[in-house]
Amino acid sequence: MQDIRIELREDKREKPQDMSKVKFGKTFSDHMFLMNYDSQKGWHDARIVPHGPIPMDPGAMVFHYAQEIFEGMKAYRTESGAIQFFRPFENIRRMARSGERVSMPAMDEDMFMEALKKLVEVDKEWVPSEEGTSLYIRPFMIATDVGLGVHASDSYLFCILTCPVGSYYPEGINPIKILIEDQDVRAVRGGTGYAKCGGNYAASIRASVRAGKKGFSQVLWLDGVERKYVEEVGAMNIMFKIDGKIYTPELNGSVLPGVTRKSSIELLKDWGYEVIEKLISVDELVEAAKAGKLEEVWGTGTAAVVTPVGWLTYKDETFEVEGGKIGEVTQKLYDGLTGIQWGKVEDTRDWIVTI
Amino acid sequence: MQDIRIELREDKREKPQDMSKVKFGKTFSDHMFLMNYDSQKGWHDARIVPHGPIPMDPGAMVFHYAQEIFEGMKAYRTESGAIQFFRPFENIRRMARSGERVSMPAMDEDMFMEALKKLVEVDKEWVPSEEGTSLYIRPFMIATDVGLGVHASDSYLFCILTCPVGSYYPEGINPIKILIEDQDVRAVRGGTGYAKCGGNYAASIRASVRAGKKGFSQVLWLDGVERKYVEEVGAMNIMFKIDGKIYTPELNGSVLPGVTRKSSIELLKDWGYEVIEKLISVDELVEAAKAGKLEEVWGTGTAAVVTPVGWLTYKDETFEVEGGKIGEVTQKLYDGLTGIQWGKVEDTRDWIVTI
Repeated sequence: MQDIRIELREDKREKPQDMSKVKFGKTFSDHMFLMNYDSQKGWHDARIVPHGPIPMDPGAMVFHYAQEIFEGMKAYRTESGAIQFFRPFENIRRMARSGERVSMPAMDEDMFMEALKKLVEVDKEWVPSEEGTSLYIRPFMIATDVGLGVHASDSYLFCILTCPVGSYYPEGINPIKILIEDQDVRAVRGGTGYAKCGGNYAASIRASVRAGKKGFSQVLWLDGVERKYVEEVGAMNIMFKIDGKIYTPELNGSVLPGVTRKSSIELLKDWGYEVIEKLISVDELVEAAKAGKLEEVWGTGTAAVVTPVGWLTYKDETFEVEGGKIGEVTQKLYDGLTGIQWGKVEDTRDWIVTI
Repeated sequence: MQDIRIELREDKREKPQDMSKVKFGKTFSDHMFLMNYDSQKGWHDARIVPHGPIPMDPGAMVFHYAQEIFEGMKAYRTESGAIQFFRPFENIRRMARSGERVSMPAMDEDMFMEALKKLVEVDKEWVPSEEGTSLYIRPFMIATDVGLGVHASDSYLFCILTCPVGSYYPEGINPIKILIEDQDVRAVRGGTGYAKCGGNYAASIRASVRAGKKGFSQVLWLDGVERKYVEEVGAMNIMFKIDGKIYTPELNGSVLPGVTRKSSIELLKDWGYEVIEKLISVDELVEAAKAGKLEEVWGTGTAAVVTPVGWLTYKDETFEVEGGKIGEVTQKLYDGLTGIQWGKVEDTRDWIVTI
């Protein structure tokens, strides 16, 4: 494993008074991790430096052809003051899979983990301790070759940023309103839907803006082939409790394989729930809702953890779920996951990596 | 229209000896155009400055969510030494449509045109005069808001780069080998296929790399829904001469509406050819090839103008077109388009804008 050079900043930034109140992803910690790749030298020059601007050539491929991938993970402060990660190798491996889809190189897993640990340690004062807060961690990689021909870049910059965060949604744990999007498509099988690459998100913005203007927090995407099966929410995977059983869209190539999704399924099964991963049509959902069997709906994601969905709108019809309140399973899952993440519940599954 | 501030570079760069030999998009002219946008001030600070690095915050949205669009166009040097553009408003308007898809603001058309003219004038020594050369122009726009929440950026940077270019393909006007891609998907209806946004290109790289290793210049994409209809080549639209008639995939939302495509259709129709825009299945192509009716295949695009396709491979079968030589219509179209572009043929259609 390569050494990480550390250059500390002299002018420490002022920290927000109340970390639980900061806007998501807007306040960055003092430092960032950087490492370069090119096909000759491989990965090199691992360094932690003051967070600040990077000089970029305007002809760099990332600006033109979006060869870029990212991850989202968190570090949590436990009651004893320790700092821990939740299943970090899941993110590390997913980033490698994302990279494979858009022809970007993977980073050595142990080097990646060491970078995460060192960076969080250097900025440990930025890991908040208020209820519900954490240090959001954003590893990302961009293509830095300068040139306008379309091809795989030969050189890349890998970067990790961190920022203290409270809730992703201003509503906090309160149920949100979701619109089932029937015009724009986010991803299709054979495309990049399962990869955490920038293009998926750019494709999603217009629908989110439209939905936001109508008062929805997010859109629920339908598949790109038949426009019939629900896929994910963009920032979250989605789960439904219908007639006592739990359903979530199967990973068919256009759905992001969420770490919180996977962890939720494992917890729910351990608790004895039947969890079914399958194609779920919007018609099935509407039918279940009309029959009074759509008992709970929630989203899962690193940023938002577990977020109850109180209202689901398709075309011009709105279905209220659980009276617009958080359901029992949603609450239990939120408590179960956050319990492990913040170290309040014993980790019996080897999900936690401490610094 | 706003004034453009001009800051000339003091250290002029050395120009390549033979502009027709430079690698596509690797050698940039002395200056670039920049302009900023934010929702409060609108477009502001139009400037031509020395081409060079831009300091970017690593938390800028373009690096994470690929909110980025671009255009490709050219300036041509005529025999008299004048410099002219080919249908620039087509590119200007397409960039506005691309922006609409990914929630980015349009620039005033006249301001955009003025920026193009001024920039090319400032760097007029970079417009090459060798046979087949031109000044490639790359307008692009990137999201510059700093923050990790997924939403439409509030601020953008618009930039125009230019570079002298020869042929896009090292083969020049010689016929290329194309592989019909049956695994990866570039775009789907409802997605961003018709927009010139970075994500489409990132999604295309893996298949191009695979095809390149097998000796193909490019891949021909199939539609994302049925994986049955041919769409485009990524850097080019595609046209087929089958049994005397000319066919090209219709613009169904996942195909880029190429300016060279549109111009080719207009020229061909003027010349009396029947041009049919429709869904074209790969089975139809294979059938035509086997029946000896696939007479010509060529790609159209700004970078590559008109490029003959000599060999088309689908799964493990290769179809040679016109004996691997350039066909009559392909050559006529190449001559017709480049004749107008370089001012050798009279422009009777108002396609040319001179500086």
